[in-house]
Amino acid sequence: MRRIRTNEAAAHIGERVKVAGWMHSWRDMGQFGFLVLRDGAATFQAVVDNAAEMDKLRGLQFESVLEVEGTIVAEPRAAVGAELHDCQITVLSPVLEPLPFEINKKELKPGLDVFLDYAPVGLRNLQKRALFRISSELMAGFRTYLNSQGFVEIQTPKIVGSATESGANVFVLDYFDRPAYLAQSPQFYKQIMVGVYERVFEVGPVFRAEKHNTARHTNEYVSLDIEMGFIQDHTDVMQVLTNVLRHMFTRVAQVCPSEVALLKLRLPGIGESIPAVRLPDAQQIIFERFKEDCRGEPDLAPQHEAWLCEYAQKELGSEFLFVTHYPTAKRPFYAMPDEANPALTKSFDLLFRGCEIVTGGQRIHNHEQLLSNAQRWGIKAEEISGYLQAFKYGMPPHGGFGMGLERLLMQLAGLTNLRETTLFPRDLDRLAP
Amino acid sequence: MRRIRTNEAAAHIGERVKVAGWMHSWRDMGQFGFLVLRDGAATFQAVVDNAAEMDKLRGLQFESVLEVEGTIVAEPRAAVGAELHDCQITVLSPVLEPLPFEINKKELKPGLDVFLDYAPVGLRNLQKRALFRISSELMAGFRTYLNSQGFVEIQTPKIVGSATESGANVFVLDYFDRPAYLAQSPQFYKQIMVGVYERVFEVGPVFRAEKHNTARHTNEYVSLDIEMGFIQDHTDVMQVLTNVLRHMFTRVAQVCPSEVALLKLRLPGIGESIPAVRLPDAQQIIFERFKEDCRGEPDLAPQHEAWLCEYAQKELGSEFLFVTHYPTAKRPFYAMPDEANPALTKSFDLLFRGCEIVTGGQRIHNHEQLLSNAQRWGIKAEEISGYLQAFKYGMPPHGGFGMGLERLLMQLAGLTNLRETTLFPRDLDRLAP
Repeated sequence: MRRIRTNEAAAHIGERVKVAGWMHSWRDMGQFGFLVLRDGAATFQAVVDNAAEMDKLRGLQFESVLEVEGTIVAEPRAAVGAELHDCQITVLSPVLEPLPFEINKKELKPGLDVFLDYAPVGLRNLQKRALFRISSELMAGFRTYLNSQGFVEIQTPKIVGSATESGANVFVLDYFDRPAYLAQSPQFYKQIMVGVYERVFEVGPVFRAEKHNTARHTNEYVSLDIEMGFIQDHTDVMQVLTNVLRHMFTRVAQVCPSEVALLKLRLPGIGESIPAVRLPDAQQIIFERFKEDCRGEPDLAPQHEAWLCEYAQKELGSEFLFVTHYPTAKRPFYAMPDEANPALTKSFDLLFRGCEIVTGGQRIHNHEQLLSNAQRWGIKAEEISGYLQAFKYGMPPHGGFGMGLERLLMQLAGLTNLRETTLFPRDLDRLAP
Repeated sequence: MRRIRTNEAAAHIGERVKVAGWMHSWRDMGQFGFLVLRDGAATFQAVVDNAAEMDKLRGLQFESVLEVEGTIVAEPRAAVGAELHDCQITVLSPVLEPLPFEINKKELKPGLDVFLDYAPVGLRNLQKRALFRISSELMAGFRTYLNSQGFVEIQTPKIVGSATESGANVFVLDYFDRPAYLAQSPQFYKQIMVGVYERVFEVGPVFRAEKHNTARHTNEYVSLDIEMGFIQDHTDVMQVLTNVLRHMFTRVAQVCPSEVALLKLRLPGIGESIPAVRLPDAQQIIFERFKEDCRGEPDLAPQHEAWLCEYAQKELGSEFLFVTHYPTAKRPFYAMPDEANPALTKSFDLLFRGCEIVTGGQRIHNHEQLLSNAQRWGIKAEEISGYLQAFKYGMPPHGGFGMGLERLLMQLAGLTNLRETTLFPRDLDRLAP
């Protein structure tokens, strides 16, 4: 008998079928019992009323793997519109040891650290797996929109030969008895590839050897990157970012309605454009509304980001806010200075519900300007010769952005620690599982 | 004036438009000249017959970045069905230094090593960029088919805490003054995630510190991985692999017809199933047909793979061949032994046009069996405790495979060195660009 997945059950009313999955819960009522089976698709209730079959379940721990043959009966009150009767049970993998914590509850008891120690089993929790299912569809939405706009996917190396290429706070590797480094971002490669395809994107891991353990940093995360040529300025990149985010949320709404409902996610609406404010103006707003004077500072602190989002929500009706024109001194050497005021760059951050989730901007495309900037930043030309090569042989005006997948998911789900939206997080203290 | 991409030209016959791209070639005929402009989409001919405009191009090297305003005129002999007349040229980024080699030729002059030194500009060659465009669509085809079959995408950590987790020949990293390792494959994580979603896939980098420099090995490559639960045996995995490959090639045919034509790629047809032969039988075939006695050896040498593909092509009409039942001693500790002969595993390799491109099989799902096997392989339980945890709490029969993207592309394109199908290859001698 061919197995069906539980989300197909309603199409087989009256039929004898086989389902298989994990013993999500079991309520033994004496003469009969309710077994909830969980498979990759959904959960499904089976009514077990035969003493011999009930005996197979008694003494088993939850998460035991079962195969159940039975007859599908319509049941309007069930989530999938049906349940299973006249069950015959086969135990594929019995669990005999008690679970580290009850994983079939909405609210998990243990704290984050204990949860992460038991993530291999804890991630089976319905809420947890719904969260990472949404993560999967955010990536899919990112790719399908960019594909539709002529962007080409690239996969660039994560082992790089120079620390400069990788930026500060870089992990060092023993590469056949010489040092190599883990890429902090695909920045140089995606810019090089603008020379090849004009428009490229990459979804992949990036590595940051930052020594601080904050709720919004980890040492390895998934970066959603694009880079595009023939732009007028950074606002062209901001528009693509606006469009791709709108598409990503639409995809989640369409593909994951039950996960969205389970997590009570509020998906943000995004109109034609997202409001933008220049950093100096943003600091003036903070000064006037929130009475803190951060004017002239080169960057925003987390509290400033939160205030600006509060302002954008109330005054502009937007859960997103672009902050543009960060100071040249605080951006990388390849950031394009603003012609009107070269102390500022044509760059942006995107804030979402109180936190920065994207950094981007226009890049310098002129070889001489890039070279002289690199030298001003103390970077030797020979350390970045492969990168410079692309510019020597003709690069168009271009720009791009990098978006942290886990950050985006954290803000979307209203969570407060990046470790809750990272499958198996890596930080100062954690390298396992 | 809004810029159009060159592949949109035929829709704008008679209109005044702006195009932009790289100066792919320029033939100066004296009174007029033919400029071929290359953008991310295609190449496009512009006829320049104004002396002042021609002067802008004279003295420029190819790859200079141009913006050209002109009138689109129908031209049936042109690839895009149109060309540009009455051109006004703006030079966005002039190239003044001669190119390292002629990149607008079908056959590139330099050898592979010189090409790789100049990859940032060399990849702009039409044949090269077509190859990696196809690579991009192979990944997209992999994902869309698996999504349609209920597989969930995962992104697992590349920094791992134990060398065992990562296998032999592993890169060592300085992780805040303690050792960490680069993942050789997502194997343990994708198996763990079968407990969460049943069916998962991952596309991402893997790292192998192998010290040999062969044409079919590099030290970092892109692995296309799946893992799926509730299988009968390894043949269920082989069927998914068959289906996903068929879908990938169909996607390339549909999305990249011009790249396929340019490279004269022969896309393989895949029927309902791919023929399979057990390793001992494969060795018997080699002995009988090719007169080399490798019977009883634990693995196939490259020449054996080539012979078997020759056999499959001639006798079975297939460019693919599964070889199954590799010896238990030569497979990892988690490989499922064959009940009928525990010295062999329910595993497979997939050969394609003379070379292995995929390894997979059924895995052990019983906790005790896995633990005792790990111990027989000399692996301590505490080194793999996170992995074992998933099995302690109920795992279904499952299996999966890992496929090397660059290997697949190499065989598809009829190339002989993996470095030709890797964007920026990493090997014993090469860490840049």
